[in-house]
Amino acid sequence: MNSEIKRNRTAAATVTVLKADKAPLANQEVTVSQVRHKFLFGTAAFELVPLANGEYEGQRQEQALQWADKFLALCNAATLPFYWARFEPERGKPMTKEVQNAAKWCLDHHLVTKGHPLCWHTLTADWLLEMNNAEILQAQTARIQRDVSDFRGLIDMWDVLNEAVIMPVFDKYDNGITRLCKEMGRIKTIKAMFEATRATNPSATLLLNDFDVSDAYDILVEGCLEAGIKIDVIGIQSHMHQGYWGVEKTLKILSHFERFNLPIHFTETTLVSGQIMPPEIVDLNDYQVEEWPTTPEGEERQAREAIQHYTTLLAHPLVEGITWWSMSDGGWLNAPAGLLRKDGSGKPAYDEILKLVKGEWWTSPTKLVTDSQGKIQFSGFEGEYELSYNGKQKPFSLTKEDAAAIEVRL
Amino acid sequence: MNSEIKRNRTAAATVTVLKADKAPLANQEVTVSQVRHKFLFGTAAFELVPLANGEYEGQRQEQALQWADKFLALCNAATLPFYWARFEPERGKPMTKEVQNAAKWCLDHHLVTKGHPLCWHTLTADWLLEMNNAEILQAQTARIQRDVSDFRGLIDMWDVLNEAVIMPVFDKYDNGITRLCKEMGRIKTIKAMFEATRATNPSATLLLNDFDVSDAYDILVEGCLEAGIKIDVIGIQSHMHQGYWGVEKTLKILSHFERFNLPIHFTETTLVSGQIMPPEIVDLNDYQVEEWPTTPEGEERQAREAIQHYTTLLAHPLVEGITWWSMSDGGWLNAPAGLLRKDGSGKPAYDEILKLVKGEWWTSPTKLVTDSQGKIQFSGFEGEYELSYNGKQKPFSLTKEDAAAIEVRL
Repeated sequence: MNSEIKRNRTAAATVTVLKADKAPLANQEVTVSQVRHKFLFGTAAFELVPLANGEYEGQRQEQALQWADKFLALCNAATLPFYWARFEPERGKPMTKEVQNAAKWCLDHHLVTKGHPLCWHTLTADWLLEMNNAEILQAQTARIQRDVSDFRGLIDMWDVLNEAVIMPVFDKYDNGITRLCKEMGRIKTIKAMFEATRATNPSATLLLNDFDVSDAYDILVEGCLEAGIKIDVIGIQSHMHQGYWGVEKTLKILSHFERFNLPIHFTETTLVSGQIMPPEIVDLNDYQVEEWPTTPEGEERQAREAIQHYTTLLAHPLVEGITWWSMSDGGWLNAPAGLLRKDGSGKPAYDEILKLVKGEWWTSPTKLVTDSQGKIQFSGFEGEYELSYNGKQKPFSLTKEDAAAIEVRL
Repeated sequence: MNSEIKRNRTAAATVTVLKADKAPLANQEVTVSQVRHKFLFGTAAFELVPLANGEYEGQRQEQALQWADKFLALCNAATLPFYWARFEPERGKPMTKEVQNAAKWCLDHHLVTKGHPLCWHTLTADWLLEMNNAEILQAQTARIQRDVSDFRGLIDMWDVLNEAVIMPVFDKYDNGITRLCKEMGRIKTIKAMFEATRATNPSATLLLNDFDVSDAYDILVEGCLEAGIKIDVIGIQSHMHQGYWGVEKTLKILSHFERFNLPIHFTETTLVSGQIMPPEIVDLNDYQVEEWPTTPEGEERQAREAIQHYTTLLAHPLVEGITWWSMSDGGWLNAPAGLLRKDGSGKPAYDEILKLVKGEWWTSPTKLVTDSQGKIQFSGFEGEYELSYNGKQKPFSLTKEDAAAIEVRL
């Protein structure tokens, strides 16, 4: 295993096993098994909304359940959709219940949920166009207050603001959020949205998220921090439709954010398994194709690149999550960007990442014998574990911070 | 004349002419003549250092004086060199006197002076390399305090920080300022330098200056302003060795800075009159050529582009100055970037800009007759004027703010 991954992702655990009467369980064989990763292996999981709301039938339901199995085998995190244009196409009629059901499904399946996004100029509500900027600000703030409140406990992690670098200069079409950001400026807009989110759910994890990986983004992060905005996690989209960045560029990008010493999520990671989008495309949305097939060579390349990318990111101490965008082919841009094909079958990239996530980077069930004080010692990946003894299972967490003094009571 | 230029650069003056005894000079013919522009038409004038210090002799002195004549005919502003590596090659032995003499020469010739730059990673003092970052910060701050103080009254306008966007990620060679900025971050570095300059000369005009015209720069400006840094003027370098930007790009760049409502200087404007530098060059310094001749076609193109560029900028209400970089061929990169050829002769661009600055954009001597209250009215370019009557000359200023109530006492 990569020595950086070992250093940054595993911890040396000392677990004291106590019997029900608090006496040490001395000299007994127990088994420890990893149950979940602490590192977030996620994906955009918008399919969960119809699935959790029973909208599928027959064969589609079958397929959706197979999709869910593959998803749950690999992932411990899910990004759920809050695109305002779709979430509340008619003002006052948000699809809160439907997305709540999807979030509940996630919690039932022990997934960490993230809502994406609360404020974005693309796919924002059309009905903002009739308002002046003061009204837009009020509506956007109220939307955050309502949704963050409605989902508190179901979703406690938010992409608060999406693509702020381009937000005020976005010129493809008129929209309320660009208008607002042009007037307020980026930093004041971000501040207002973060403050509204924070006030509504003080314990939530809040991200600033962007596709821009030029100096502009890290300068914006610096400006936000200097202006007193508390960013919990820096989100980097990493849509690589135009080709894998490679290790060097990935590390260079990371190096620009290291000085903030903040957690980083790769929030929207795309590697296609078909033709690479031509480099002259600036806005990826401009690439409109009828068909964008996955190909055998493309799938092999995607697998190689995915291994490399996940390995690079897992080895970096500040990265805390990678979200694949998205699980199946045929989503955004109709790109062959999935880990699964349209028929639901897994591509090599799926198999390879799964081998890493639940193999090389996973602590397999291990038999250990407690000492006279009931202690066992082992080295494992940070995450959730189960200790089994005599037919009983007890959970415990392994993190670097608490690794030296874990206690499990049977 | 361009109607924007008329609106943004001229004012309708009402001048009351009083006799020595304060009685109105009624019903008399007077002449008003513009003496200088308020708008800063400048150039890098590093040649003034040897000239003002009597370092030229014979033919070179002749040439230098001819250069000075051409320079003074066109310009009302001069940028003087403070590159630390050259200004203080040996620690403790700055060339203060020499540059003071050049600044005095400028004041004697009614030029507005600007010092360039106080803090920059390029051409910074080599001897910083032996220091730790705390010592570098102290040395850089002390340098600002010393020089800004030594030149107070001689130079009251400073490019405080140069090229902050690239400063912490500059990787061509190790230098003290990049090290410092990497640790402090851009905004804290800018803040420290601005505060040191402001404290030393509270009435000085302070610029942030950059060649970067991407979103990164205006995001940095926003971050600085949100962090409470008082930037008086935004400096945009505009070295166009790789081809004229054209009106559209120029206006687009300006539009990114308009929201700050701060004055803008085009601090280092270059248009070459020879071959255009290839587009694949990223750092202009990488373009090293033996010869880069000025050509007749290049000179015609340069003239057309210069007219366009000056016209675009003069028409924009926030732009308050343009500095040509620099007056003669053979300066930075050995480029044919001058308005004058190496032999001192003027190129078409010189003639054309001069025609504009002292012709179309200039208020020629005008005879007017005072009314019974001693008043005259005229419309003129903002700047310094002279009123002549009966062999006497009296100065007055014309600005939009004060245009309606100017008083001249004979």
